[in-house]
Amino acid sequence: MPTISSRGANAHTSPIRKLSPYADAAKKAGRKVYHLNIGQPDIQTPPAALQKVRTTDVKVLEYSPSAGIASYREKLPEYYRRNGIDVTPGDILVTSGASEGIYFALLACLDRGETILSPEPLYANYVGFAEMADVHIRAVTCTIETGFALPSVADFARALTPDVKAIFLCNPNNPTGAVYPEIMLRALAELALEHDIYLFVDEVYREFCYGETPFFSALNLPGMENHVVVFDSISKRYSACGARVGAVVSRNHRVLTTILKYAETRLSPPSFGQMLAEALIDTDEAYFSTVKKEYKQRRDLLYNRLSAMPGVTCYRPDGAFYVFAKLPIDDCERFCQWLLEDFTYNNQTVMLAPGNGFYTTPGLGKQEVRFAYVLNERDLNNAMDCLALALERYQAEMKIETSFRV
Amino acid sequence: MPTISSRGANAHTSPIRKLSPYADAAKKAGRKVYHLNIGQPDIQTPPAALQKVRTTDVKVLEYSPSAGIASYREKLPEYYRRNGIDVTPGDILVTSGASEGIYFALLACLDRGETILSPEPLYANYVGFAEMADVHIRAVTCTIETGFALPSVADFARALTPDVKAIFLCNPNNPTGAVYPEIMLRALAELALEHDIYLFVDEVYREFCYGETPFFSALNLPGMENHVVVFDSISKRYSACGARVGAVVSRNHRVLTTILKYAETRLSPPSFGQMLAEALIDTDEAYFSTVKKEYKQRRDLLYNRLSAMPGVTCYRPDGAFYVFAKLPIDDCERFCQWLLEDFTYNNQTVMLAPGNGFYTTPGLGKQEVRFAYVLNERDLNNAMDCLALALERYQAEMKIETSFRV
Repeated sequence: MPTISSRGANAHTSPIRKLSPYADAAKKAGRKVYHLNIGQPDIQTPPAALQKVRTTDVKVLEYSPSAGIASYREKLPEYYRRNGIDVTPGDILVTSGASEGIYFALLACLDRGETILSPEPLYANYVGFAEMADVHIRAVTCTIETGFALPSVADFARALTPDVKAIFLCNPNNPTGAVYPEIMLRALAELALEHDIYLFVDEVYREFCYGETPFFSALNLPGMENHVVVFDSISKRYSACGARVGAVVSRNHRVLTTILKYAETRLSPPSFGQMLAEALIDTDEAYFSTVKKEYKQRRDLLYNRLSAMPGVTCYRPDGAFYVFAKLPIDDCERFCQWLLEDFTYNNQTVMLAPGNGFYTTPGLGKQEVRFAYVLNERDLNNAMDCLALALERYQAEMKIETSFRV
Repeated sequence: MPTISSRGANAHTSPIRKLSPYADAAKKAGRKVYHLNIGQPDIQTPPAALQKVRTTDVKVLEYSPSAGIASYREKLPEYYRRNGIDVTPGDILVTSGASEGIYFALLACLDRGETILSPEPLYANYVGFAEMADVHIRAVTCTIETGFALPSVADFARALTPDVKAIFLCNPNNPTGAVYPEIMLRALAELALEHDIYLFVDEVYREFCYGETPFFSALNLPGMENHVVVFDSISKRYSACGARVGAVVSRNHRVLTTILKYAETRLSPPSFGQMLAEALIDTDEAYFSTVKKEYKQRRDLLYNRLSAMPGVTCYRPDGAFYVFAKLPIDDCERFCQWLLEDFTYNNQTVMLAPGNGFYTTPGLGKQEVRFAYVLNERDLNNAMDCLALALERYQAEMKIETSFRV
């Protein structure tokens, strides 16, 4: 049998999706699984935009231009302007989700063996994209005690060796929900400018800030026109993950021109998704206030429930829709699998994303998990009932197991 | 300013799309451009399937499973069975076009620096994917004199050094339209088996064979279950290029499991596209006979027109919707750009794909171009009127230019 490549055999597996076979088995066995593992909201995609796609008169579903449908790119600055960001259609290249944009930017800006500097825990898929692009991630570790606030600029500066080509942030942060203050972004911008490296910022959760720190886009950092590359997506903004439409936004057109070569190789982003995305720009602002209110309530519920569980360390996240909490468990992977394989309460269980997959530093995150508060309050409450009981049972079983071993 | 990566700066540019800015400029100037550069058919996407997407009641446009929507994967074997191919849903992983599947297979099966063996001219984007995956393409050159038939097995065997991990074919062939006979595929399969390497086959033009050589799928090669990986797409089959839905099909589940890791990193293929793809499986077989008849007429028209032009070398291709012809020109890139920048006939011009971009051997294809016969007969005739005149004018201008130089 021909061999699999070593890189393929050793490739990063998504902590968000890799337990899916166990979840599928649990569902097949008739159990209800609460999916808190994945940022797939239950919020409705704005119906008016969906309706517009339905009534579009398409005769031939053509390739779009590689950089995106022209009318969509031309309309996008409207959205950015409403969010206080001044960009032109030429600053925008449409991608298949933010995912593809991140991967293309790594190819366009970093050579093999070069490094990006990123706070950890980090969105696990960055690790996958870095592997695909054959670049390294050097992590600057954040801690749960500060609610995963950014480390000091001095910490970043210390990690900044000549092979570092970009500082890479996710703001508001996936997986921690931290929102980075303008002052911190300005300080990091200065550092990037001083070393003449890129500042990559994944801003797909831009709309979702609930705390006192207002969102500040890296696109509004003065003097950083050539250094800032922002990744964007309609997935979370409009609960339209399946559209697979994102964008790279940068005033550095050399970066965009280089990315365009990769974009041409894959031909085009999905046409239906782009039609939806274009219609979504007209979404009423009331949609966001309703959705934000909903997420804020869910966050509070989740925070309150987790805080009440003995041995759980938690904080109140300011943005996105994630909490990264520490549980009284020995091994998050084992626990998350156990939840799906061995645990049931009223024929229900919970799926979580093991925390270690969000760190690049070996050994970190072993007791942590990511919760996505993407379900309605009743479901979230049920999931928390499951979790509270599961933690008790798991601890009891592990103790028994440990005593047997002795 | 931070630097672009060297790989980005030197990245392959698509010969199919790279002249697009010149085409856009020509259109802006009011000229009609006949696009024979790109395999974007003007054939209608089956309306019944489009209608089904319109009437689907989607409330939340969710991520699909990374390997594709379950109901679509489960229905796909119907399509393959109708085409004499026996596969299960587990043999299929849905991708964003064949493009993504090819790239993922390179990552999963080849380590950096390893090689695929492919006949050239080859589909230019393979070069881009190979670069992204950091693998080499070693080409076995076909010639226009034989209508770009496959070279002998001995030619492949000679090129088969230990770093070769796969033979990679496109059948029916893009860009040449050659259809490979069963006997040749069996011989190459034997070679692959002997060296225990993969046989990758891009079969996205499966339906489009007009000659005496019937299509033979690599999935029907006996004893090759672990070696054959097929790339597929709905783009050409149903004229649905913008859907961005393809698949990797293989009975080697280690390959699919490894690809799934990369697929999970990019989350999911587009949901709307998959809904369309699922509905398209029910497309009446009459659709294909109508479409095939149409393409065959266009092929004959194109072949007849090209053959009548002085100095043009051409052949009658058996499949897909391309002709790769040799023109009486000095430099195909220069000529194709000239067509868009400097030529006009009744305020019309033609866009072609320069042939050199389809070769990896430097210097080859300089006088060749790829024609995609994706336009209706009237448009094709107009395009050929333009080309005939353009060739005359270009030759005259070049002669003048040359004499000036002397």
